[in-house]
Amino acid sequence: MSASVVAFAGSRIDRADHVRQSGDALAGLMNHRARLLLLDGLDPVISEDNTLSWGSLADADADAELVFLGLSEERGCFAAVPLAGSVAPANPRLWQAMATLDAEELATYGGARSMVDWHARHRFCARCGSPTSLAKGGWQRNCLSESCNAEHFPRVDPVTIMLVEHDNNILLGRQPRFPAGNYSALAGFVEPGETIEEAVAREVFEEAGVVVRDVAYVMSQPWPFPSSLMIGCHALADDPAITVDTNELDDACWFTRAQVEDAMRAAQAGGRGEAFGAPPPFAVAHHLLNWWVRRG
Amino acid sequence: MSASVVAFAGSRIDRADHVRQSGDALAGLMNHRARLLLLDGLDPVISEDNTLSWGSLADADADAELVFLGLSEERGCFAAVPLAGSVAPANPRLWQAMATLDAEELATYGGARSMVDWHARHRFCARCGSPTSLAKGGWQRNCLSESCNAEHFPRVDPVTIMLVEHDNNILLGRQPRFPAGNYSALAGFVEPGETIEEAVAREVFEEAGVVVRDVAYVMSQPWPFPSSLMIGCHALADDPAITVDTNELDDACWFTRAQVEDAMRAAQAGGRGEAFGAPPPFAVAHHLLNWWVRRG
Repeated sequence: MSASVVAFAGSRIDRADHVRQSGDALAGLMNHRARLLLLDGLDPVISEDNTLSWGSLADADADAELVFLGLSEERGCFAAVPLAGSVAPANPRLWQAMATLDAEELATYGGARSMVDWHARHRFCARCGSPTSLAKGGWQRNCLSESCNAEHFPRVDPVTIMLVEHDNNILLGRQPRFPAGNYSALAGFVEPGETIEEAVAREVFEEAGVVVRDVAYVMSQPWPFPSSLMIGCHALADDPAITVDTNELDDACWFTRAQVEDAMRAAQAGGRGEAFGAPPPFAVAHHLLNWWVRRG
Repeated sequence: MSASVVAFAGSRIDRADHVRQSGDALAGLMNHRARLLLLDGLDPVISEDNTLSWGSLADADADAELVFLGLSEERGCFAAVPLAGSVAPANPRLWQAMATLDAEELATYGGARSMVDWHARHRFCARCGSPTSLAKGGWQRNCLSESCNAEHFPRVDPVTIMLVEHDNNILLGRQPRFPAGNYSALAGFVEPGETIEEAVAREVFEEAGVVVRDVAYVMSQPWPFPSSLMIGCHALADDPAITVDTNELDDACWFTRAQVEDAMRAAQAGGRGEAFGAPPPFAVAHHLLNWWVRRG
């Protein structure tokens, strides 16, 4: 799968790891040519031409920590850590704003959002409770206590999300927070001590009571709320009997290929299919369902 | 790929998520029948029959935090959080001990190690610096400050590890810490804002200056040092010219299929091939190379 068929992928900013490793190189980029990604809290600031807005480092608060996002046309690109990190699910205004951005812009925004949000929520050392400070252009935080000195790194949380197939039908579920009539692929965090394939099988069994086999990787996509790596998979089920975990889901059921095709046509136009509403194009579930429809 | 072809996968302990969600269910399992995984710090305690050693909850320090690993034959399985977490790479004694364990036992040990190590290194709230306490059987920690109340979850860090192929040769590198003559697959953490495929391409270019295409997922494996999810991939390169990043690697070079086959035969017997020493069977790189050799 190429990056261009999913969302939040394909940023043109060069992450330039060698700059992060060199205080001198980093300092040399923090000049009048440097670009600062403008954010409203954690939300993007979008120009009239539907691109992200950039300013200069002078636009950041004087005491704000700056994250080095990478290089673009030999200029350093930065984002400032806001006072507060994310606490609640993203707001509807954000979904509307993101819909106006093209894939590259969405990728740049998503990566920057995950980074500054992580910093805002990790100002203290989890090992000893002391304050920490930003290091290596924001790709690390260091504990300021000399007796601890722990190093901390930005989180990326792998999440499995899967299309389970039985007899040309697909298993989808709905979480209580979904808009009425909407369904999506089942999903869950990979836990310590399990493979991607084990996580897929465990989650489907936990949430829907369905046993799967032949788990296969399909595609991946970052999901910056706050810092997930969505790992899209396909699996087969022999027995379609469902037992819904009502603590997790309102409902889970099988949809036919025709129902999925109809819902995906409607979703492309921002609408809802006859049988259900499919996830929006930001969501990897949307791209997984498209993959399955095209695969025939 | 089935779990059984990789290491640290295939534990028979049922993670029993429903128990974590219920204080009553959890308390009901913390009885005289409960099993405590015995650990020496973070190392396993191995019986004469080459299995993990288990005791009862009475074997834990009275004030130790207990992590619920899951259910085995309707008995609760737990591990106690040690005083100190991991700080240095694992010791050679640990590699020897792990070599005596079969796949299931290694999986149970690896998952438990990642969990208790995470707790030992996360006794404070990264958001506000206050103490935290174990919750939901150890699958969460809660900030004890009423003005913060942040919830924290165990980390799993996705790492890409890749076999890059050109003209039936494979690109391998050696890190300074490797035993003399040993080479392995290039690898690196997935960063916020990138797909698995993007991370593979970025890492190979950073470490060896090689441009790749057609990145394909092959297999995954947990790596509990401290909490990685290794995501094994294959990719193709058109231009074999290498520029080694000497900050990361001592060397990177192409090995022929015959050289890889020889090294893998030697590695199965715990030895070193003519051209290089291959990674041990704990490592996903070992299984990736086996996959490539068998694929022909």
